[in-house]
Amino acid sequence: MIMTRWLDNPNKDDVVVSTRLRVARNLKDKVFPIYSTDQQADEVKELIKGAVANLFQEGEYSYHQLKELEPRENMRYMEDHLISPVLVDHWKKSSFFLRDDEKVTIMINEEDHIRLQTLLPGLDLIQGWKLCSEIDDTLESVLDFAWHEEYGYLTSCPTNTGTGLRASVMLHMPGVTITGHISNIIDALRKIGLTIRGIYGEGTEAVGHLYQVSNQLTLGESEDEIIEKLNRVVLQLIRREKNTREYLADKKRLEIEDKVYRSLGILRSARLISSKEAMEMISNIKLGRDLGMIGNQQWEDLIKLMIDIKPGNIQNRLGRSMNRVERDETRAEIIRDYFK
Amino acid sequence: MIMTRWLDNPNKDDVVVSTRLRVARNLKDKVFPIYSTDQQADEVKELIKGAVANLFQEGEYSYHQLKELEPRENMRYMEDHLISPVLVDHWKKSSFFLRDDEKVTIMINEEDHIRLQTLLPGLDLIQGWKLCSEIDDTLESVLDFAWHEEYGYLTSCPTNTGTGLRASVMLHMPGVTITGHISNIIDALRKIGLTIRGIYGEGTEAVGHLYQVSNQLTLGESEDEIIEKLNRVVLQLIRREKNTREYLADKKRLEIEDKVYRSLGILRSARLISSKEAMEMISNIKLGRDLGMIGNQQWEDLIKLMIDIKPGNIQNRLGRSMNRVERDETRAEIIRDYFK
Repeated sequence: MIMTRWLDNPNKDDVVVSTRLRVARNLKDKVFPIYSTDQQADEVKELIKGAVANLFQEGEYSYHQLKELEPRENMRYMEDHLISPVLVDHWKKSSFFLRDDEKVTIMINEEDHIRLQTLLPGLDLIQGWKLCSEIDDTLESVLDFAWHEEYGYLTSCPTNTGTGLRASVMLHMPGVTITGHISNIIDALRKIGLTIRGIYGEGTEAVGHLYQVSNQLTLGESEDEIIEKLNRVVLQLIRREKNTREYLADKKRLEIEDKVYRSLGILRSARLISSKEAMEMISNIKLGRDLGMIGNQQWEDLIKLMIDIKPGNIQNRLGRSMNRVERDETRAEIIRDYFK
Repeated sequence: MIMTRWLDNPNKDDVVVSTRLRVARNLKDKVFPIYSTDQQADEVKELIKGAVANLFQEGEYSYHQLKELEPRENMRYMEDHLISPVLVDHWKKSSFFLRDDEKVTIMINEEDHIRLQTLLPGLDLIQGWKLCSEIDDTLESVLDFAWHEEYGYLTSCPTNTGTGLRASVMLHMPGVTITGHISNIIDALRKIGLTIRGIYGEGTEAVGHLYQVSNQLTLGESEDEIIEKLNRVVLQLIRREKNTREYLADKKRLEIEDKVYRSLGILRSARLISSKEAMEMISNIKLGRDLGMIGNQQWEDLIKLMIDIKPGNIQNRLGRSMNRVERDETRAEIIRDYFK
């Protein structure tokens, strides 16, 4: 029942979950989505839709208009990281193309006319950027993008102007979270122009010990520089997290075992559980599994499980809207079943 | 391995754990223990010791001097409610006689020369007072107690002067604790001259949802009035607690089941657990068992288990002193074994 196809990865890593690249593009001489009338937005949508339909093979992409989907379906696409929270906010105007393998999304009328995203499992910035860049070039071959000789690609929000590129890597870092080193890491990353935050975008808490590290600057650095720097820092973060986990397994074994087994005890017995608590507990079990403290062949998709128990996914699984208590009860059932 | 013999009770009640009566007595013309020199305290001790040895059958009581016991042994007697915290504080001077069935303790050089305690399982104020009164009369037949025509029995602390009687009942009240009604109950009891507090004496928190209700006054009310009033109020508290549990089982079933099963999940999996947390979790399981939500024939002694996992008991079981982490680890093992 677990979806999130794009996460299928033969080369699993204990720390890096995924790599995402997205570029922001706008059509020349068209009003930005946040200022456009419904008619203007519709016109932009039709232009892009026509281009994509002509450029790619039939059946390669599916097309979705948010206003035609149930709110729980839109939520599920967002939870799966296939579309952005802003696209959902703009549901009246917005739509998206999703490639069959879920690795490419072309969002229309988000904050910009186009947000092109590639999403790959593990750390794969080079391939992710290659894929993103190729599709961007293909789109640019038929669409006229707003571009300025000095500033580069023009965007609705100035923080995206320039390359329009946001490269980000999702990391599972329970080790440095437990020891508290994460606050130093956050400060250090900020100083070198990178940001780190929770996995559902700006201002979100790092639920489930999942962090998203990305470039802050889009102006003044080339795409290759952005990617090279992020890659280098992520490799350092992986080393740091792994060293910390080894330290914990060695010096704080009892405390960590206690945390891991308690989490399993709770997940195997709770009758009601919020997605936040569940993600935290699943994260602890993943840490225990990665450290070889507990193990089960069936538990390989713990990150997928974390996504699968989010509110939108829960409601889609049952094909209906549910209130909070119903969701918490269903979530607890799904999780008990998973870990039984 | 579980001790606390006095708790053995064929007529178990889901709410009332035990009934305790104690009288405070002092020898006429002898300095109160808090002011006495070591020699004076010793003299008092020998007088009382001689009297008890002559009055009761050989082997009926065991005699213990606190200074000759390990601190962990004294702690264990206190945790089992067989001696008072103050007796332990006065360990240099204090001693006690313990009847074989653990239902009678004669404490020497506590706050008063004699603190005679009877301890019975369940709600049994009449029998408890009868037993206490008989032994008190027997002691008085050979010892000369400080007594004043107007004030009654004289005691070290004026709050005990008069009857010298403190009657108390230990109740397990998770229901009114969960709903928060306990704060109204505390206020109401205070207004009618009763006090309610945690189970290890004044100022202690109600860990494990266990409360001790007792008379506040010893002057101006006869023994029979004290006991009759306490009995009446306890019967009301039982009804209140049982009604609240029924309400919870009916209207908040899912939340309560969640609490109960989570508690079991934690106790079955924790590798480190404090006695406070463990008592709370065991209390939740007792609530679930009393409500018929979960059941196991082997879990009948949950109150005994709560006592058995206190620090002194843990250390005595292993026959050595342990630091906090060792205790928390051993406690977790004992509990996992109990609930496996």
